Amino acid sequence: MKPADTRIPPGTPVKLSDWDADDTDIIGKPKSDAHARLDEYRARLETLQELLYAEGKNKLLIVLQAMDTAGKDSTIRHVFQGVDPLGVRVAGFKAPTPYELARDYLWRVHHHVPGKGEIAIFNRSHYEDVLITRVNGWIDAAECKRRYRQINDFERMLAETGTTILKFYLHISKNEQKKRLEERRDDPEKQWKFHPDDLSVREQWDDYMAVYEAALSATSTAHAPWHVIPANSKQARNLMISRLLIDALEGLKMRYPAPADGVSDTVIV
Amino acid sequence: MKPADTRIPPGTPVKLSDWDADDTDIIGKPKSDAHARLDEYRARLETLQELLYAEGKNKLLIVLQAMDTAGKDSTIRHVFQGVDPLGVRVAGFKAPTPYELARDYLWRVHHHVPGKGEIAIFNRSHYEDVLITRVNGWIDAAECKRRYRQINDFERMLAETGTTILKFYLHISKNEQKKRLEERRDDPEKQWKFHPDDLSVREQWDDYMAVYEAALSATSTAHAPWHVIPANSKQARNLMISRLLIDALEGLKMRYPAPADGVSDTVIV
Repeated sequence: MKPADTRIPPGTPVKLSDWDADDTDIIGKPKSDAHARLDEYRARLETLQELLYAEGKNKLLIVLQAMDTAGKDSTIRHVFQGVDPLGVRVAGFKAPTPYELARDYLWRVHHHVPGKGEIAIFNRSHYEDVLITRVNGWIDAAECKRRYRQINDFERMLAETGTTILKFYLHISKNEQKKRLEERRDDPEKQWKFHPDDLSVREQWDDYMAVYEAALSATSTAHAPWHVIPANSKQARNLMISRLLIDALEGLKMRYPAPADGVSDTVIV
Repeated sequence: MKPADTRIPPGTPVKLSDWDADDTDIIGKPKSDAHARLDEYRARLETLQELLYAEGKNKLLIVLQAMDTAGKDSTIRHVFQGVDPLGVRVAGFKAPTPYELARDYLWRVHHHVPGKGEIAIFNRSHYEDVLITRVNGWIDAAECKRRYRQINDFERMLAETGTTILKFYLHISKNEQKKRLEERRDDPEKQWKFHPDDLSVREQWDDYMAVYEAALSATSTAHAPWHVIPANSKQARNLMISRLLIDALEGLKMRYPAPADGVSDTVIV
């Protein structure tokens, strides 16, 4: 799959089983080059992020959503390794606190949107409010539809006020999740990540696929598109996301700001 | 003018000169009763706010906008005197800081929306971003129209997630402002409130009326109506706003939550 093909066109139905989670086209041949290429992408990302920060004009919001073990944390670690933490903030959204629940569900995410020159990465997001809530019947279909609209309105406002939004669904297969959960269970260094709750969510796999499909379809817009990232291969996933970020940042036609008048003639004594 | 008549119906043009800033009908006769009536209204507001807090379900957002000296601060002081500060928060919005300007203009107001059981009062608000910005040409007509839509979307989301929104435009005449500015200038205890900037804003009076009219008309919605409050008389203004707040809170059909099981039989030793 090419980076261009990961995007869900606005208004189209989504059937996740039609998307190949095993796709590794992005790696190319020989496969041994993949590591070097990720290093190269990271270096470009680093340069582009410096420029974003220096220019102080654009804002970049990255939304990561996925089933457990699909690699949200790992994507952040591998893709943003080396990028200046000054200009990148990660906001993770777990089960809301009572204080957060007392407000609208967009309240806590709005607080963490990127400022000018910044990259914000949402590790889970307001999309949980149309996913886990829907699978468990905490909201009905009408409320869910209302939220799709509210989310699209909110993201449109962010886009109109200078935010580039990229939303990534990390697509793994149910079999791949089984392998990764078993790894977690058996590896003493990964056991801390294993929660029995993950298994009950796994039992709801088909329900989750259905609500993801509905949400991705309803909220992939021109101003905030969803990308389905083949994620059974970690290398393919990292390369694909890096590539999409590079393309998005390069599309902004950024420039270093002009120096203050007379800077080059300034004598420093 | 009766409380019911202060509301701007959605989608209607607004001509502020058609609204009588001197109207004092709400005071009734004899005028000497007005003070006692405000006390009575305040007591009811106090009770209703306690119930709002105890029930912990509804949220009340009050937006105050007006020309200088129209009485935003004074309304807050007089109407909410005696109401438990635990459940009422005032958020004032002055010229945005660089940190705020680096984000969308709704960001800082969203942060201060009321939680369940709370009243939030916005002393100025996101409406400044379609008023002062427009008068001074910092945004063009197209951007202003976009913001009206963004504001309506934002307020609709707040309403749909349980917020009752009341927006008050405190309507004073240009002559009344002259009197009040002269008072500020001459009274040693009020001089601190006098800024020379107020005079340059006063020079733009007609421009401000025009942008207010456009904004009130474009953003008075069923879910977040604007009320034009006759405010040349401070008593009339306070009575009218208190009355509207009481009506809104009574409309919520609130109840004290049921006690925990067995509370009434509990023996306290």
